[in-house]
Formats: sequence, C-alpha cells, structure tokens
Amino acid sequence: MRARAGIVGFLGYGGAELLRLLARHPRAAPWLLDDIQEAEERPRPLARGAPRRRPVTPEAVKQEKLAVVFLATPAEVSMERAPGLVEAGATVIDLSGAFRLRTPENYARWYKAPHTQPKLLAEAVYGLPELGRDGLRGARLIANPGCYPTAASLALQPLVAAGVVDRSAGIVCDAKSGVSGAGRKPSPKTSFCEVTGNFSCYSLLDHRHVPEVLMNCGLEDGELSFTAHLLPVERGILETIYFRARGVGRAEDLLQVYFERYRGEPFIRLHPAGQVPDLRAVQRTNYCDLGARLDAATGRAVVVAAIDNLVKGAAGQAIQNMNLALGWAETEGLQ
Amino acid sequence: MRARAGIVGFLGYGGAELLRLLARHPRAAPWLLDDIQEAEERPRPLARGAPRRRPVTPEAVKQEKLAVVFLATPAEVSMERAPGLVEAGATVIDLSGAFRLRTPENYARWYKAPHTQPKLLAEAVYGLPELGRDGLRGARLIANPGCYPTAASLALQPLVAAGVVDRSAGIVCDAKSGVSGAGRKPSPKTSFCEVTGNFSCYSLLDHRHVPEVLMNCGLEDGELSFTAHLLPVERGILETIYFRARGVGRAEDLLQVYFERYRGEPFIRLHPAGQVPDLRAVQRTNYCDLGARLDAATGRAVVVAAIDNLVKGAAGQAIQNMNLALGWAETEGLQ
Amino acid sequence: MRARAGIVGFLGYGGAELLRLLARHPRAAPWLLDDIQEAEERPRPLARGAPRRRPVTPEAVKQEKLAVVFLATPAEVSMERAPGLVEAGATVIDLSGAFRLRTPENYARWYKAPHTQPKLLAEAVYGLPELGRDGLRGARLIANPGCYPTAASLALQPLVAAGVVDRSAGIVCDAKSGVSGAGRKPSPKTSFCEVTGNFSCYSLLDHRHVPEVLMNCGLEDGELSFTAHLLPVERGILETIYFRARGVGRAEDLLQVYFERYRGEPFIRLHPAGQVPDLRAVQRTNYCDLGARLDAATGRAVVVAAIDNLVKGAAGQAIQNMNLALGWAETEGLQ
Amino acid sequence: MRARAGIVGFLGYGGAELLRLLARHPRAAPWLLDDIQEAEERPRPLARGAPRRRPVTPEAVKQEKLAVVFLATPAEVSMERAPGLVEAGATVIDLSGAFRLRTPENYARWYKAPHTQPKLLAEAVYGLPELGRDGLRGARLIANPGCYPTAASLALQPLVAAGVVDRSAGIVCDAKSGVSGAGRKPSPKTSFCEVTGNFSCYSLLDHRHVPEVLMNCGLEDGELSFTAHLLPVERGILETIYFRARGVGRAEDLLQVYFERYRGEPFIRLHPAGQVPDLRAVQRTNYCDLGARLDAATGRAVVVAAIDNLVKGAAGQAIQNMNLALGWAETEGLQ
Repeated sequence: MRARAGIVGFLGYGGAELLRLLARHPRAAPWLLDDIQEAEERPRPLARGAPRRRPVTPEAVKQEKLAVVFLATPAEVSMERAPGLVEAGATVIDLSGAFRLRTPENYARWYKAPHTQPKLLAEAVYGLPELGRDGLRGARLIANPGCYPTAASLALQPLVAAGVVDRSAGIVCDAKSGVSGAGRKPSPKTSFCEVTGNFSCYSLLDHRHVPEVLMNCGLEDGELSFTAHLLPVERGILETIYFRARGVGRAEDLLQVYFERYRGEPFIRLHPAGQVPDLRAVQRTNYCDLGARLDAATGRAVVVAAIDNLVKGAAGQAIQNMNLALGWAETEGLQ
Repeated sequence: MRARAGIVGFLGYGGAELLRLLARHPRAAPWLLDDIQEAEERPRPLARGAPRRRPVTPEAVKQEKLAVVFLATPAEVSMERAPGLVEAGATVIDLSGAFRLRTPENYARWYKAPHTQPKLLAEAVYGLPELGRDGLRGARLIANPGCYPTAASLALQPLVAAGVVDRSAGIVCDAKSGVSGAGRKPSPKTSFCEVTGNFSCYSLLDHRHVPEVLMNCGLEDGELSFTAHLLPVERGILETIYFRARGVGRAEDLLQVYFERYRGEPFIRLHPAGQVPDLRAVQRTNYCDLGARLDAATGRAVVVAAIDNLVKGAAGQAIQNMNLALGWAETEGLQ
Repeated sequence: MRARAGIVGFLGYGGAELLRLLARHPRAAPWLLDDIQEAEERPRPLARGAPRRRPVTPEAVKQEKLAVVFLATPAEVSMERAPGLVEAGATVIDLSGAFRLRTPENYARWYKAPHTQPKLLAEAVYGLPELGRDGLRGARLIANPGCYPTAASLALQPLVAAGVVDRSAGIVCDAKSGVSGAGRKPSPKTSFCEVTGNFSCYSLLDHRHVPEVLMNCGLEDGELSFTAHLLPVERGILETIYFRARGVGRAEDLLQVYFERYRGEPFIRLHPAGQVPDLRAVQRTNYCDLGARLDAATGRAVVVAAIDNLVKGAAGQAIQNMNLALGWAETEGLQ
Repeated sequence: MRARAGIVGFLGYGGAELLRLLARHPRAAPWLLDDIQEAEERPRPLARGAPRRRPVTPEAVKQEKLAVVFLATPAEVSMERAPGLVEAGATVIDLSGAFRLRTPENYARWYKAPHTQPKLLAEAVYGLPELGRDGLRGARLIANPGCYPTAASLALQPLVAAGVVDRSAGIVCDAKSGVSGAGRKPSPKTSFCEVTGNFSCYSLLDHRHVPEVLMNCGLEDGELSFTAHLLPVERGILETIYFRARGVGRAEDLLQVYFERYRGEPFIRLHPAGQVPDLRAVQRTNYCDLGARLDAATGRAVVVAAIDNLVKGAAGQAIQNMNLALGWAETEGLQ
C-alpha cells in the first residue's frame, strides 16, 4: 500500500505540481487535498478517480493515517498549521519560507513579521539534499528551500567551499524566473497582457531569498548582489552568476570542483566547459544543470545554473525530501 | 487650439489606447482622465507634461469646455454617466454595449439587465462608418461598435446585401481574439500562466455580440453560428467566416463586391484572391483587412477579416467617430 | 528484455517525441536513431547512456533484431524506406502521409506526386484505433493518421455514423495547431518573430488532410469545409466543428453518442454538456478530449476536439499502434 | 520636397524598421529599397503607393539624387558598398559593425576578418549622439552603434566619467535581448518552438560588442564582464549592470550624475530612485530609460537600462544620426 499524503494549498502552482508528481509516485499517493481557494475554473474532463478534497487537520492525519503532509501555503499559514500536524505524527514538508532561516530574528528581518513558532524552527531540518542530508531521515519537519536559493546555492556553495571564489570582489547573481514563481493569485503584475512581450526586474539587492543563499554558502552580508527578473515564460529559473576566480585558470577547473562535489548525485548535471544550460534542458524535471566559462587572462568567471522552479525549486525537491525522510530511494517518483 | 477630450476609464486597455491615440491627434487633445481604479503599477519614467486626472462630471464638461467625452466603461456605468454628460453639451462616444442594440428589450435579453436610459437609447447613433455615416455628424451620443461585430459586419454585410450568401445553409463565424479584449481586471482566466501556450473557446453560440452582427447584416436569429476563442496574444482579432456562395463562382467575385462597396474607404484593405490577412497586418492600425477564398466546384466560401481589437475594434473607431461627429477629416490622427 | 525500436527522423519534432516516449516504455526501447540532419544545436548536459545513432537499414533491422521501426520522415522518404524494412521483418509504423489514403490515385491528387509503392499501400493498415482495430494486430505496415484528421475524425465519425449530422447543410471544421506541427526545418513562417503575437490561417479549403477525414467519416467531397490556422503555441490542436444537428435536441444527446461509441476507450475523455476542452487539458498526453454545445431552438451544434499534435496526433498514437501490433496492452508507456 | 533615402537590406528587421520610421518622417522619404533576399512571404494587402525596389548603386545615388543611404547589411557587405556610395555623394549611415571600432586591428580581432577599408574607417564618425555629437553634422559616413553597446554605454559612461564606479572591483553587465536582435535569417536557434517558453545565454564574456562598450566608456580590457541572453520576446533590450559605487551613498546620487549629464536630452528618461524600467516602457520608441538602486551599507549598486533594440538600438538611432548629419532637428520623425 502506498503511503498517504495530504497537500495543503493544492490549487496553487506548487501544490498542483505536487499533486501531479505524487499521482505517479510508486510509494506515496495523494490522499487528501486542502485549499482555501474555490475549485478550478479551467475546463476539465469528466471526473475520474481522484483524491478527496478535505481539510488536512491533525484529526484527519490520525483518522486517515497520513504519513506526510505538504504545506504549499504562505509562511504565516505554515507557521499556524505545522505544529498540530507534526504533533499528530505526520512528516511535514513546508514549501514556504517559514522554517528556512535559522533564527527568529533573521526571519523577522527578512519576512517583516515575527516568527510565531521559534521552538519548531529550532527543530526544522533544511532540505537541500545535495548540500547535506544530515537529519533528513526521520525528520518531523523539513523546510523546503526557496526556488532561487536552490539554484544559487547548488552553483555557489561548492566553489566557495573550495576557495576558488575571490569573495573580496563580490559575487553577482542575476536571476530570472518564469511567472509561476509569483504564485497563482491573479494580479496586474502577472496578467497575460502585462507579461507577454515584456521583461522586468524586481527586488533589486533586497530579495528575501538572499539570506538563504548566504546561509547555504557561508557568505557574509554584502558579498552577494542578487537581483530577480520576471521572464515571459511559465516555468524555469536561470541564474547567471559572476565572480572573480582565484587559484584556477580554466572553466574545466570549476567543473572539476562540481564533478568531485556532486559525484553520484542523481539530480545534478554538468555541461561541457564553455557550454551552459537553457531552460528547456530542465523544464518538467528535477535536475539542476550547471555550466561554466572562465576568461583565463583576467580570471573573470561566469557560472550558469538552471532548474524548473516548480520541480527542483519546489515540488520535486519536496518529493526528494519526502523520499529521504521516509527512507526510500531518493529518486522515487522523480524520473 | 485643439478640442478638449475627457476619457472615463482611461486605465483600462481601451481607455489607455484612446489616450495614446488622442495624444498625437492634430485636432483634439486628451484633457481630463477619470478612472475608479488606482494608478498604474508598471514602472514609469519621471513625469512629463500630461493631461490631468479629474472626475469627468457634467460640471467639468462645462468648466473645462470639453468637446467630447469617451466612456471606456462597463455598460451599467455608461448608462449612468452618459445622460448628464450629453446634457452638459459634450459629444459622448460610448465604447460599451449600452447603446448598441436598438431596443431596451433586446438589450435586456443579451445583457441580462434592464436598460435604464431608453430615451437616450432611441437617440444614440451606431458608429460603424463604413456601413453608414448617417447621423454621425453632430451626433450627441454615439454607440461605438463591439470588437467582434466590427470585423464580422464589415466582412458579411456587403455580401449579404449583394445576395451572394446562401443564408438557408447557415453562416459560421469562428472568431479569435487577443487577451486585451477581456479587459484589464486581473482574473485567473487572463493570468499569464493560464493563457501562455494555451488556446480555448468561450461563449459558444451565445456571445452577446451576436445580436449586433445580426442587426448590422440584416440576418435572422439562427442564421449565424458564432463562437469566440482566446488567443495567447495581446491584441488582434481574426475571424474565419464560412458560408455557401450563391450566384458567384470565384473568390474574385466576392472581392468585387467588397471593392465596389468599399471604394474610397480609407480603413478597408483587400487582399488578392486566395490570400488572407494575419494579425500582424493590422496590429496597431485602424485597418480592417479582408480576404476571400472560394471552392468553385461546390460553392463553399471562406472570408477572413482581421482588425486590431483595441484600435478598429475600440479606440481607433471611437476616434474615427469623433472625427465624423465634429466634422473633421475621417482619418485625422489615425494614420 | 525490451523489444528494440529504430527511429528514422529522430531529430524532427515527431521523432524527438517518439524518442521521449519510448525511453520510458516498459516493453520497448529506442535502440537505433537515424536522421539526415546534423546533431542538435541546443545545449545538452554531458552524455549519459543513450541509444546509438546508426542508419536504420534492412541489414540493421536483422543484425540488431529491431522489432519495430518508426518512420518520422517525409512521405517520399517513407515510400523509399518502408519496403526494405518491412521485408527485413520489422513492424513499420509510418508517421507520414505516404500510406494513409486508400488508392494511389487519391494520393497523387492530394500529395502532387505519384505513389511509388502501390502494392505496399494496399497492404498498409490505417492506425486510428478508436475507429477500428481490425488488422492492427500483427500488421507489417501501419499508416499513422495525420494530426488534424485524428481530432476531426474522432469528433465527427460517431456523429455522422449515428445520423445526427445534417450533411446537406455542410460541416465546418475550423482547425488551429501549434507550430511544432509545421516541422522543425527553419523557415521564415515558423521563426519566432513572425509567429509570436501573430495568428494566421493557411490551406483554406484545400488542406491535404481533408481526404483523410472524408475517408474516416464516410463523407463526400464538398460536405466538409476545413481550414487550418497557426497558433503561437508550441504544441496542441483545437478544432471547432460546426454542423446542423438532426434528430437530437440537446448537447447531452451528442455526448450520449460519444459515450456509447467510446465506452472503455482509455484515451477519449468527454467534457460535461456545454463545456469544452482547451489545449492545456491535453498537452503532453495521448488524450483526445471532446465537448459539445447545441442550440435547441435552431439545431445548430458545435463540437470541440483537442489533442496534442505531437502525442495523440503523432508519436503517442504511433506507440499506441505499436502496442496493438505487438499484442501488448494498448496503454503501455502512454500513462 | 523631402530628402530621398535609400535602404540597403530593407527586408531584414533593422531595415524594415527604418522603412517604417522613414515613411512618416517629415523631411526624408524612403525612395529606393534594395535587398538580396526575395520579397516578403507574409500576406500583404493590395499594393498602395510605395518606394521602388531597385539596387542602391553609386549611379542610382546620382540619378535619383539620394541624400542618404542606410546600410542595414552585414559588416562585410557594408565595407564593400560604403566607399562607392560615399564617393557618389550620399551621407552613408551604416548599421553594421564595420566602422564602429577605431582601428583595423581591433576590428580584425573581434570580427575575425581583415578590415578592407582602413582609410574610410579613419574617416567614419561614431553616432551615439548623447555621448558626443562632434563631427556628426555633415559627416559622410556614420557608424551606427550596436544595440547592446547603446544601452550599456548610455548607462555606464556618465558614471565612469564622474568617478563614481570602483573599477577595480569589476563591472558586470547582464544583457537580455529580444529575438529580432538575431536578425531575420531563419535558423534553428530563432525558430518559434525553440524560443517560446525558453531562455538562454550566449557569447559569455566574449561578445563582439564588448570592445565598443569599453571604447565608449573609457574602460580597460577585463574591467567589464558582459553576457548576452535571448529573451522570448520580439523586441527590446534590458541590461542589468552591477558595480561597486565610490564616493556616493544613495541611488539619488547616481541619478544626479545622469540628470546633469543628460539635461535636455530628448531620448533619455530617468526613473525615480529605486525604480527601474521594463521593456514595455521603451518598445517602439527611441528612448533609453535608466533607473538605479544602491545599497547604502555596502555601496553595491545596480543600474538598469532599457531600449528597443530595433529603434534606439538600430533604426531609430540611425534616423537620429541622419537628422544631425543633415542639420535637422534631432527628434524629427522620432516622436
């Protein structure tokens, strides 16, 4: 029998992607679907067998024997719902920013609101497996990383750790995301006529995902300049990362750092030296693709990272974390 | 001195297009802008000289000496605002459906609400110049046609009038519109992620624009099957119209009907026999482009009409009507 | 061991989709890939295990023990390659138009070239399973249907057969397709700048897919008016089909015809009366979705059919045909 | 009488934009159109009055009394055609890279081919008016700037000249362009299916536009890291530029530098501090919009520049240069 999963917020883009991925997972099944929004408006074929729509409460966790609950909800809702669900025995995987940063103070600084569950925050395990799987097995509460930080951290952490980045000159991460990253709530900023044929930037230098990247990579405030852009595409993130290399002279040297660090990783793919991924390479997959280029004369380097913001940047990574938490093969349901 | 114009609803797509066109009109100038929505959210360069934002009331018409007021508002708002503005002496050009149909009964049937200004409705002049300019000069209230009916009527009326359409077999109008036709209010149906890469139909057989086409072309209920579709483009309407031809044997014969009917019309363009327009041909112009094909063996005919829904289908035609109402050259500000 | 498959033309859009679907098929595996084009230009991650690129000749069929060969090639190439491959013992599934029409004369009329394999044409089995599975089991050569005819025939054939279509008034099929249907060869007509924001029609009344629909539905020349349109989307076909209904009074009656005809069909989905599918409902699936609307007062009916042109309209249907030919479950590898 | 202009390469995107702009210029008229490509394939309405298609040779310049010739051609064609046309007395404005760099050596290094007209190169005047109008009046040959360098130079030159950029830390210019920048020749890289829903980068660190930016801004090799990206939009360039500020503490300080430098410039617009332009703000205009943000604590700065690559980045700037060369008001035909 497949383990039962509940999804809170199943009508948002992240929640819908979770439902799609879980429906074909060999060891877990979507069981209860919860959302405060009304039902879909897009035309649907006549109903076939489907999970039930019902509030995912602590009682429901017990009655329905839910092994795992995904919170695809805003941070404030996640803080409110997580404690009871954890208490009721479900493995809770939260896709919001509620439990990603290490201290309530840092949360308050970047999310502009007090953290209401500091005790649970201390217990939460950050779930970016390629950078660390400690504590994920058996975890009660997993903080699923942000979409931008997933790509930026997978690209930067190994290089920073290997000492090949000249941090004194500063690092630039120019990030571009598809519109689904802005969520499903209708807004003038995400309406078709405003987005199509257009391109814009937002959160220049002060995006709330910045502290997550710093935390993952061991960087200090001010060492990273990050700016987010809105691409007229549905899904995908591409980040172009600039830095001055130190102690290495060729793109191959950077790739070698990745190669050693990510040996055996099922969801990391490297491109040949000088080549870089585009969004197509990763859309609808759980891969993070990496490529590098380096100007030997001056040491200037560019690394490009691409993921699907809804998969490796959200729902796919949440499945990967579920697999690890429940002791299954990490790639179950993701290939 | 340029005549002064007020725009009610200047933040909607139709109103914004009016503002854009009026700003370069040699004989009229946008003077007062009115809208219940809050200001723009898109980034704007530092302000330069611009019309003032102020409610366009009857008093404002008198104080500011407005010659013309455009109502780019929902039908119920137009019915409420038009009487006072007409009374105050402005030429009112209404872009809504409020004054298009001839009787309050027909309005109530298709717009699902009573008509509150039957007297004004009787006085309103329907403004599709290529099909009739009577009464437009000096008109106090002009009903600007719907976007779909503009293209369909310009394509069908001459052919029906010339007797080359076999009405007994029925006429099909398969209409496709860009998303700006759905208005600016954010909605799940017009959000980028729902529209991009997608294509859908709506209002199958019962679109509220149908009676307007019947009225313009002298057709009876049930002679026209009309269906609207939503294209993943910002602007433009293309209508593919099918019928059985009568008494003619070649596409050239259909084009000859158009040629004679539209001789000297500045905004009608005909394509060579067998060729048809695409959206690009008409975007950002006030043209209605027409093309035709006919299967000689069976008499089946296809006519394709293309317009820009925001220009010839809304704001451009409103300017054209203003030009006629105020006795100016019909093409002023439209070329 | 999985049965081995060869793909000729694997770099085209249809061939690439075949490769994608076969790679996850439980009973067949892509084994040899053949194409006259040069390799991909898009960035690719470092190579992982993949089928070999090698000409799929009759000798290769024997040496490599290929059970099936897919021809994703132009009709003239398919006519040249099919005989030897069939002779060598492979089940050949041809995605071109070479073997779809029943007579060399009809082929020559619509494809403007003589048929060079009339004997093989006589043996070929047309593979639209929902309209007939006779002869598919064990077939040596299967003609995979065209993309437009797949949707049109699945929508029309049951209604025509049930006698609920008034054929004397004519049937209109207004078809819209994504750009991948035009193939991968670069052309001004399919370049990004020409297609984005645009919409156009082509092959008015004389598309070469018309005779295939007539053949499938038992219609006569001149009873169907078909026009193709190019949507600014990558994949998907939506057809809006208009006719006068006979002997039925509600959309439910039309759906009941489908319901009885398609009972148990795994790849047909019906939408509730009055609702119709959009492209999203079927993209990247092998489904054909159907919806209907009927105006009771006048008997005018609209049926909407949607498929993914690369899946049910090409590669997915080819897999479905392979499954039937080799005696496997029809849905293998397609869910 | 309007001055007569010839356009060589009028069927490319830059040439077509020139034709569109010239057609409404009050003092110049498109007179002869020249292109090696065949005529348009997109449907066109029946011909109306238009310039003639005829080779723009030195003889034609004399016979037809052409005042100006625009070369919207590849660099090698421009080098071949320019000398004769200049000799024949036309003001030649070249949109290629042939005459932009100052020395034949630098040209050969970046364009991978010898410069065949070193004498003419020495005479050519670089035409980025906001950074210098010297020599444009009466110039015989004007090198119209590249699209990327136009935006980058307008954003960087004033800041570098004012000494507020810490050059030692390096400058990053992350540039994104619409597809029309890649030209009209069909290619797999610019086909609709490859571009739509996708986003990619190219020419990492070694784009041939880099030396032009260095030349304009007085920067040294290695001080600028430039990478180009392909946006799934038709037109527009947005560049996000990162550097460490020196001697200034607020975004307002950077804007003040622009304000003083660009006082009275008709085609430069500044956004309020902290706000930045998007593509919509500049599409189909000759404006370059600029915005800035600065992190006071660390001095990290971001400047965003947006232009329309076909207007300020090509045809619009060419018209601006023509206006200056012929002694007309700089904004003629551009507002």
